[in-house]
Amino acid sequence: MPTAEILSQGDEVVTGQIADTNAAWLSEQLTGLGFDVTRHTTVGDRLADLVGMFDEVASRCDLAVGTGGLGPTEDDLTAQAMADCAGAPLVLDPEALQQIQDRYAKAGRTMPEVNRKQAWLPEGALRLDNQWGTAPGFALKHRRAWMVFLPGVPREMRGMFPSVVLPLLNREFHVSPGRLVTLRTTGIGESNLQERVSGVSPGAAVMGFRTSMPENHVKLRFPTEAPADAVAATVTAMAQAIGSPLFAIDGVSDVPFALDGPDLQGGGLSQVVGRALTDRGATLAIAESCTGGGVASRCASVPGASGWLIEAVVSYANASKVRRLGVDPAQIAAHGAVSEPVARQMAEGIRSRAETTFGLATTGIAGPGGGSAEKPVGTVHMALATPTGTHHRMLRFSGNRSRVQSLASAAVLDLLRRHLQGRL
Amino acid sequence: MPTAEILSQGDEVVTGQIADTNAAWLSEQLTGLGFDVTRHTTVGDRLADLVGMFDEVASRCDLAVGTGGLGPTEDDLTAQAMADCAGAPLVLDPEALQQIQDRYAKAGRTMPEVNRKQAWLPEGALRLDNQWGTAPGFALKHRRAWMVFLPGVPREMRGMFPSVVLPLLNREFHVSPGRLVTLRTTGIGESNLQERVSGVSPGAAVMGFRTSMPENHVKLRFPTEAPADAVAATVTAMAQAIGSPLFAIDGVSDVPFALDGPDLQGGGLSQVVGRALTDRGATLAIAESCTGGGVASRCASVPGASGWLIEAVVSYANASKVRRLGVDPAQIAAHGAVSEPVARQMAEGIRSRAETTFGLATTGIAGPGGGSAEKPVGTVHMALATPTGTHHRMLRFSGNRSRVQSLASAAVLDLLRRHLQGRL
Repeated sequence: MPTAEILSQGDEVVTGQIADTNAAWLSEQLTGLGFDVTRHTTVGDRLADLVGMFDEVASRCDLAVGTGGLGPTEDDLTAQAMADCAGAPLVLDPEALQQIQDRYAKAGRTMPEVNRKQAWLPEGALRLDNQWGTAPGFALKHRRAWMVFLPGVPREMRGMFPSVVLPLLNREFHVSPGRLVTLRTTGIGESNLQERVSGVSPGAAVMGFRTSMPENHVKLRFPTEAPADAVAATVTAMAQAIGSPLFAIDGVSDVPFALDGPDLQGGGLSQVVGRALTDRGATLAIAESCTGGGVASRCASVPGASGWLIEAVVSYANASKVRRLGVDPAQIAAHGAVSEPVARQMAEGIRSRAETTFGLATTGIAGPGGGSAEKPVGTVHMALATPTGTHHRMLRFSGNRSRVQSLASAAVLDLLRRHLQGRL
Repeated sequence: MPTAEILSQGDEVVTGQIADTNAAWLSEQLTGLGFDVTRHTTVGDRLADLVGMFDEVASRCDLAVGTGGLGPTEDDLTAQAMADCAGAPLVLDPEALQQIQDRYAKAGRTMPEVNRKQAWLPEGALRLDNQWGTAPGFALKHRRAWMVFLPGVPREMRGMFPSVVLPLLNREFHVSPGRLVTLRTTGIGESNLQERVSGVSPGAAVMGFRTSMPENHVKLRFPTEAPADAVAATVTAMAQAIGSPLFAIDGVSDVPFALDGPDLQGGGLSQVVGRALTDRGATLAIAESCTGGGVASRCASVPGASGWLIEAVVSYANASKVRRLGVDPAQIAAHGAVSEPVARQMAEGIRSRAETTFGLATTGIAGPGGGSAEKPVGTVHMALATPTGTHHRMLRFSGNRSRVQSLASAAVLDLLRRHLQGRL
């Protein structure tokens, strides 16, 4: 198994002004490709530190991928440091210069003289074209390692990886990305998820788990040569073992995969809900109290949400619950605003007033104040009003205000998702 | 200037399963304390890799702070690796064991036998008490460096840093945190902000800039001995140079600081708005279209928001704008839903129906679809209805849907902030 290291260059990373998300992203890609990622190293914009690090790394691993330090200013030293380390001069790459000039020309501007620096690469390096920004990357073999350098801007780096780095890795290391299948669940914890799939063999795949609140994922990485029907068999067995918390499966659109019942096409929770509503021409209205707009905001993040999300009302004040949603003040007086009857009336009220297929509602105590022995902070009542009746659920979330709001927003959407998938 | 390095131990970090936010946080703390942070290194859970890294680092810097690998399981190897590196045996720290047992007892549980491992520390190490979790940290001097190890759980690590690490650093390096003053702005870019303050001397402070969308900050770090009136003079000059984009100043609550007019106490934008509304006994209602609940959600994130946020309506559908907000359908027909007259009517409508002091409204095109030559994606009309009249603003944001929604949500709140601070 070839070893790989991840490098990051830049004062802004080493001093903690920005968190290094590039390193995690690149590690995950390289691990997925079958590299043994052994180390990440970050240094600042000092030539001696950079040369020293490149020198160590070139003897220690088979592949190093570094980001940052390719900009036009004086403190962008990656190319200079790699040239010094390899004992090669920097040479002007005319094609790189042309690309940078063209990029400016396309934006109706003239290239500032300072950007010329970005076209100087260590002699003998492969230029890695960057169609997302001005700085080209480069790669060269030095001692044991292929040293690959990409821009630090995440959008540029993530664009270049599949288009210009992956072909190089395929050629030099015969790695291939295989097929990544992600089973997306919500509403159960990671250990519960692990238990559910513990009896299922992952077959040819390498299995992993990942939490991306409020979702928990099972990741299966199949080798490129795994036949589609074997993939389908493994994924079906996993899906059955997980059961109703599973709401979508990414990476199987071309696989003859079928699970009785629900549409489990990929995507996030709001996307899945939006797609299911669109498919049946249904609409949604939302009444929120403790989640304060979080449910609406989650829905509105999906492109095209205006096709199915008709309206949402955040009714913090009791008077607003009565006036906007038609909640009976006597119910509020009898049970309190955080109660099953009020949640049900909110969902039914918004559904009937907005004339939608479905109505969702939340009322709870997000904290930090407002809790009691009977209704502690984190208590949330949720309701889903449908053409055939209203469902209620009460959950208690732990954590601070923003965690309670975020988990409750996802949980009420999941109530609708389960209904739409026939898994409530 | 003493040099420092940041270490992270763990397969989950080196394989990219989680992004390393600890490293950025620790770097920022140490840079602020006057350390020259020269390198971050991450390795996985392999004893030889850990020992090798600790060995390098101990000769290269004055301080190393590492996180992770202190848990009870077999792959938690930090203490073992440091013991091997220093040539010292692991010894059971009875006080550490007692603390772990007490922690379980307090939760009404018996300590699992496996957790006993967390009480074994390298001989001669200082135990660093952890009141946030079971794993104590430890520190020891090896060769040139003080090696400090903390748990990888961010909450525990961030709790322990000021309480148990800072006293050690003060004693060994005579560093002190000084005073950090943050001037928080919104609505201008970083280069504009830099220009505005370029003519003002930071006095005794070290000045830095940081973007935390949708805010841009000027950070001034004053030495501990800087007199309060000198701090006040510098901050006042900066505040005047920045002008109306400045909405709050953190870190000056004990300084005789006064700027004519606005209350510039610290906090985020929603907090500042919430405080200003509470101070004058005013209330707010919100009508959102393109921001889809983002404005409400931002407000609802502030503890106690139910005291001033009465309600919010997300009116995606035109019919909802008419029915819920009283927008005139003829205006929608004449100008389109994304227009100044509709934004104004939305703000006035929600204010009058919710009977609040202020009404805020957004209507725009978040994308990716729906744009036109006249109204491209990113066009957002905003309005603020007040007891004395309605203000309108139109802005064009660039970027994807979530960026447009997020920037527009902040911009409309900032409209209210400017009004409340008399800086509109």
